[in-house]
Amino acid sequence: MSDLKVSDRATVDMDSWVCPVPLRDSPNIVMGHGGGGAMSGELVEHLFLPAFGASAVAGLSDSAVVSVGGVRLAFSTDSFVVKPMTFPGGSIGDLAVNGTVNDVAMSGARPLVLSTAFILEEGTTLASIAHVAEAVGAAAQIAGVKLVTGDTKVVDSGHGDGVYINTSGIGIIDEGIDIRPERARPGDVVIVSGDIGVHGVAILSCREGLEFGTTIRSDTAALNGLVADMIATGADLHVMRDPTRGGVAASLNEIARSAGVGVSLSERALPVPPEVRDACGLLGLDPLYVANEGKLLAFVDPADADKVLAAMRNNPLGGRAAIIGSVVAEHPGMVVAKTGLGGTRVVDLPAGEQLPRIC
Amino acid sequence: MSDLKVSDRATVDMDSWVCPVPLRDSPNIVMGHGGGGAMSGELVEHLFLPAFGASAVAGLSDSAVVSVGGVRLAFSTDSFVVKPMTFPGGSIGDLAVNGTVNDVAMSGARPLVLSTAFILEEGTTLASIAHVAEAVGAAAQIAGVKLVTGDTKVVDSGHGDGVYINTSGIGIIDEGIDIRPERARPGDVVIVSGDIGVHGVAILSCREGLEFGTTIRSDTAALNGLVADMIATGADLHVMRDPTRGGVAASLNEIARSAGVGVSLSERALPVPPEVRDACGLLGLDPLYVANEGKLLAFVDPADADKVLAAMRNNPLGGRAAIIGSVVAEHPGMVVAKTGLGGTRVVDLPAGEQLPRIC
Repeated sequence: MSDLKVSDRATVDMDSWVCPVPLRDSPNIVMGHGGGGAMSGELVEHLFLPAFGASAVAGLSDSAVVSVGGVRLAFSTDSFVVKPMTFPGGSIGDLAVNGTVNDVAMSGARPLVLSTAFILEEGTTLASIAHVAEAVGAAAQIAGVKLVTGDTKVVDSGHGDGVYINTSGIGIIDEGIDIRPERARPGDVVIVSGDIGVHGVAILSCREGLEFGTTIRSDTAALNGLVADMIATGADLHVMRDPTRGGVAASLNEIARSAGVGVSLSERALPVPPEVRDACGLLGLDPLYVANEGKLLAFVDPADADKVLAAMRNNPLGGRAAIIGSVVAEHPGMVVAKTGLGGTRVVDLPAGEQLPRIC
Repeated sequence: MSDLKVSDRATVDMDSWVCPVPLRDSPNIVMGHGGGGAMSGELVEHLFLPAFGASAVAGLSDSAVVSVGGVRLAFSTDSFVVKPMTFPGGSIGDLAVNGTVNDVAMSGARPLVLSTAFILEEGTTLASIAHVAEAVGAAAQIAGVKLVTGDTKVVDSGHGDGVYINTSGIGIIDEGIDIRPERARPGDVVIVSGDIGVHGVAILSCREGLEFGTTIRSDTAALNGLVADMIATGADLHVMRDPTRGGVAASLNEIARSAGVGVSLSERALPVPPEVRDACGLLGLDPLYVANEGKLLAFVDPADADKVLAAMRNNPLGGRAAIIGSVVAEHPGMVVAKTGLGGTRVVDLPAGEQLPRIC
């Protein structure tokens, strides 16, 4: 009987599991496993995917494309555990909507519906939950998505942190659109939609004990409108990605690996606001590795770069869009930046976590 | 600019929120808000829905039906916080797959794909996560669903409990199928697919300090195959529901309220295994209120009851299916049970939580 199989496995001796070599530095979960960098990737590749076995599709990426009854759907999920739950420029409620809307939109889909699942900690004030829920509702309205199904769980005090939110989203991909990391190819122009590093620095700046004098507000925003404007140009968009955890560096590395191409960046071209540069300087952070929540990277056919850039700059969320590099045939799988001083440096995939719990 | 609206709300004074009257017993989240009973319903009705505003569809039920490009999809989400993470008969990994598969299947959909989002607590052993992930993979394989997209977050030690899992699922609803709570109508026969109260008692029995002598194993199972067998009979299935949190009592009350009908139960007809009856007796629990994770309730046109019951009994997961009551025009919105002694009693919607964190 098929259900017996599941039951019997519950008696498996936990000690019999052999930790795969790449994970052996630690037998336990550490914060870096949640950082969106190399350690997160290793956990997926060497623990989750082997354990899931034949049930998982290869890669298990941020967003899946699923064909159902002749319709191509984009389907994505994200849990949000940002600390603190409210910060300059937004709250966990805004992030929960915008993060999933953006993941869905990055495959060129039009996001339509979201689910919301709350894990509430016993003792949290109803008022704070209400404000987070209001942020969810307002962000969904701005993004033009409907909240269609939900779930609420409560965990005992000391086993949560106020509220954790999972959102999952479904979008529809119109015919003729094929946007995915594997499509990056030499010659592509790499565009970023605006200032980088803002969200991560905003979170840091409001955490206890870290003040920089100026208030930096998170850039959290839904990018599906911006994506629609870009698609409407008729340009051949090859790749889009929102550079959240691990920042621009992590996203570009992942795309370079997926497509087997190199990415050449110009550091001078990176739009880094002065207050982010200052904060990063004080803290020893590199803005390329700091999370964004309202920005996207686009890899575009060079013939189309100008019209895409023009369309982006016409949208308030792309007003400071800039070309920051290009795809090259050299150093496949690697990102190399030309520094301001004329040298070059390798922009590695980050290992773990510069800033824990930023989303 | 639309994104400014969201940003500005972050400065709202939290104290200005006025707690709606039905929630005023406590200004804070209590365990009962997660129990799937009246308090959970109040939180959704008086806090989440007003806060979400126009972005939410009415009800925000366990599973939504969404039409996309001419295809009817069932879409559902659930977070799992069961304690302990492994128990006789299964683990949080089994529940996470089966729970969402079942929610999708209860609208008559064929579940196709799942997302998995893990919130891991710092310090949890990789071995325990691997075993949970193996349970996810095995359960998905048994249910015939693919794991297509995922997410991993890590929270610091003391802000989680090993692992919490969210799964969201998409299924397709074939033409001609219309299964939803509002379709319950007087005359309908109410069927349960098997023994009730097993999962909740299994969880209790393995929690520290509570032993009953016998090991009761959770009934966690994916019911989509059973549902397919029921649909294949061609019967007019009006309502299906998996009676998880709050048990059979909560599910029947919700259906009675949704459809504006009464439900008449026969206590004698309820399949309660002796070990569940004994454990409930010792603990002062009512099996009608104890959670199930591998059972379903079906409301069926009386002309079709026999063939549905026969089909269910032919499936290992419905081997002990039984008719437990019927829908009546009297006492709309209420569930009334005929007791073993010939009397009647009202089976209320539970207020809060008999057993916290059972799923």
